[in-house]
Amino acid sequence: MIVYGRNPVREAVRGRRRVLRLWVARESGQAVPEGAPPASIVEPAELDRICGSTDHQGFACEVDPYPYVDGEALLEDPDALVVALDQVQDPHNLGAICRSAECAGAAGVVLPERRSAEVTPAVCRASAGAVEHLPIARVRNLADYLKLASDRGAWIYGAEAGAEASYTDPDYSGRTVLVLGSEGRGLGPRVRSVCDQLVSLPVRGSIESLNVSAAAAVLLYQAALARPQENARTS
Amino acid sequence: MIVYGRNPVREAVRGRRRVLRLWVARESGQAVPEGAPPASIVEPAELDRICGSTDHQGFACEVDPYPYVDGEALLEDPDALVVALDQVQDPHNLGAICRSAECAGAAGVVLPERRSAEVTPAVCRASAGAVEHLPIARVRNLADYLKLASDRGAWIYGAEAGAEASYTDPDYSGRTVLVLGSEGRGLGPRVRSVCDQLVSLPVRGSIESLNVSAAAAVLLYQAALARPQENARTS
Repeated sequence: MIVYGRNPVREAVRGRRRVLRLWVARESGQAVPEGAPPASIVEPAELDRICGSTDHQGFACEVDPYPYVDGEALLEDPDALVVALDQVQDPHNLGAICRSAECAGAAGVVLPERRSAEVTPAVCRASAGAVEHLPIARVRNLADYLKLASDRGAWIYGAEAGAEASYTDPDYSGRTVLVLGSEGRGLGPRVRSVCDQLVSLPVRGSIESLNVSAAAAVLLYQAALARPQENARTS
Repeated sequence: MIVYGRNPVREAVRGRRRVLRLWVARESGQAVPEGAPPASIVEPAELDRICGSTDHQGFACEVDPYPYVDGEALLEDPDALVVALDQVQDPHNLGAICRSAECAGAAGVVLPERRSAEVTPAVCRASAGAVEHLPIARVRNLADYLKLASDRGAWIYGAEAGAEASYTDPDYSGRTVLVLGSEGRGLGPRVRSVCDQLVSLPVRGSIESLNVSAAAAVLLYQAALARPQENARTS
């Protein structure tokens, strides 16, 4: 896979994947990340071609395929905070949610194999490289995964417009899965039915809904408040 | 100005600006928003050319220039919640912050005239049309505006990595301005010096920082908790 962008390339070098090649645009004026393989200096247009995008900020690398993890392993920690995304298809939203999940201290993100964005170069870019550190699992069926998580002692909270409970009502301690639905359509009926509680975010103003990545950030930070703060830096 | 995208065009028709022309791509299969002027049916490639973007979802309209408001007027309500952005330059971030601000019930967003993104078609698109309803002001100097807001009784909270106070410490009731800095550089020194309190969001994990629009969503919803909930729907 090709990873492009300044932060994504730096995090790929720091992260779990082997970096096979590195390209830097001529006159990009940027330092090669520490620990990276020797860089090939190329023309910006050549980098556009390698990346299939102009959004590379002068940096790209070739890395191993994305190392998805086992979904069950995300639930090991008794305080595990997991985000499950029901058919989120926009790569920018998936990347943004991964970045917020990593910063909030989540154990990982779970995606269904079908009708979901997967970890593509655009997702790596939108996550600012967070996907290189954050464990991400793909599961055959999200409702089955949530039932398994429930059996493992996790509490499953689904975000749904109109839900009577506010997102501030639960205490979110212990193993917690936050489920967010696709842009526009919300949670699927089977996924909805396996949630222990549906919660909503208040919406004022004149437009219909929050962006799913903004809702995820608010929910993640609310759930993080119920967790030990010792390991947190401040941002 | 050209506004493109399904939600942005619908909100432009519902919003404050005159809609001068409307274009719909042939075979887009989409209904024209209620209250819109008669649509011209055009080929998708023609719509790409009109918008200067392929990200139009089959819809575009021509509207009056963006109607910026007076910054002082945003502070009238004794519970006014205002977001001030210190040199946020990415249109996607500005649009995303405007969408979250509208949903959180903010009175408006304040931008400096220089070194800041302004309301462009890409911002309208990223805001899902929220900018058509949310008041946005441009001010000559952001630090001067914050001093004025302080004189009008507002409490000024600056988001800064490493600040000792957590974003959950303040109570955020009454007139409140949340100040967020530019991607990468944070708050400028003069802006920083006029803040009443600096607050930070805890960051765990391996990457440096939250995206500014995720941080804005978390802060906005935290501040909204201190405000009357009667007018909120649930999302």
